[in-house]
Amino acid sequence: MRLAIIEAQKAFDSDEVPVGAVIVAGDRVVGRGHNLVETLTDVTAHAEMQAITAAASALGGKYLQDCTIYVTVEPCVMCAGALAWSQISRIVYGASDPKRGYNRFGKVLLHPRTEVVSGVLESECEKLMTDFFAKLR
Amino acid sequence: MRLAIIEAQKAFDSDEVPVGAVIVAGDRVVGRGHNLVETLTDVTAHAEMQAITAAASALGGKYLQDCTIYVTVEPCVMCAGALAWSQISRIVYGASDPKRGYNRFGKVLLHPRTEVVSGVLESECEKLMTDFFAKLR
Repeated sequence: MRLAIIEAQKAFDSDEVPVGAVIVAGDRVVGRGHNLVETLTDVTAHAEMQAITAAASALGGKYLQDCTIYVTVEPCVMCAGALAWSQISRIVYGASDPKRGYNRFGKVLLHPRTEVVSGVLESECEKLMTDFFAKLR
Repeated sequence: MRLAIIEAQKAFDSDEVPVGAVIVAGDRVVGRGHNLVETLTDVTAHAEMQAITAAASALGGKYLQDCTIYVTVEPCVMCAGALAWSQISRIVYGASDPKRGYNRFGKVLLHPRTEVVSGVLESECEKLMTDFFAKLR
């Protein structure tokens, strides 16, 4: 999650909503990404989407069945749907996102075999978000 | 929808699940895409995702508020989430997808101002899908 926070900080520094993600297979980082929605003018350019694409490319297969994604904020519906398609083993996230997070609909959006851990380094992940939105005001 | 079917045929011809999408602003096509999941080894490479990215790039803005997407098959959860972020005006789809479509969860996954029309050229859109899966067997 420390690496995901470094990714989120990159987003913060580019005036993007600070979300970062890292995908790990065993002890190897196979994908990382940070939010690039404004930079790329593309609503699909979330941190998780970049990380999924990068990990599949690094592993040479579209499924991430033996992988864990560490993401600083609870994934949205789009990213939950993408993670479901990837059949990822585990999702570990930091801060919750009650407004936009997939949990408004529940684990049913994910693949049935995906395990979820939440609240990891929560306050650090959340602080990046609150600092970002405070800066906008 | 005829143009979306042409896109879906391209996917079919590349041994991809045959889904095609076209995004229109006024009378202008601003984005198109077909499923490239196998070609790109990337579960995020759905037709709608390509079309959203292309349309935002063509229009120079991330929101598609005055656009309609024509897609041959009911969007999945990931694509519904992406379409929600895009605030697209209208979704027109052909065939339903009871197993993977967003309608298992309902319109709540979409942006509240997005209008949906379903069943347009349904049998042609569906035929591509049934022919594809028959070919696999």
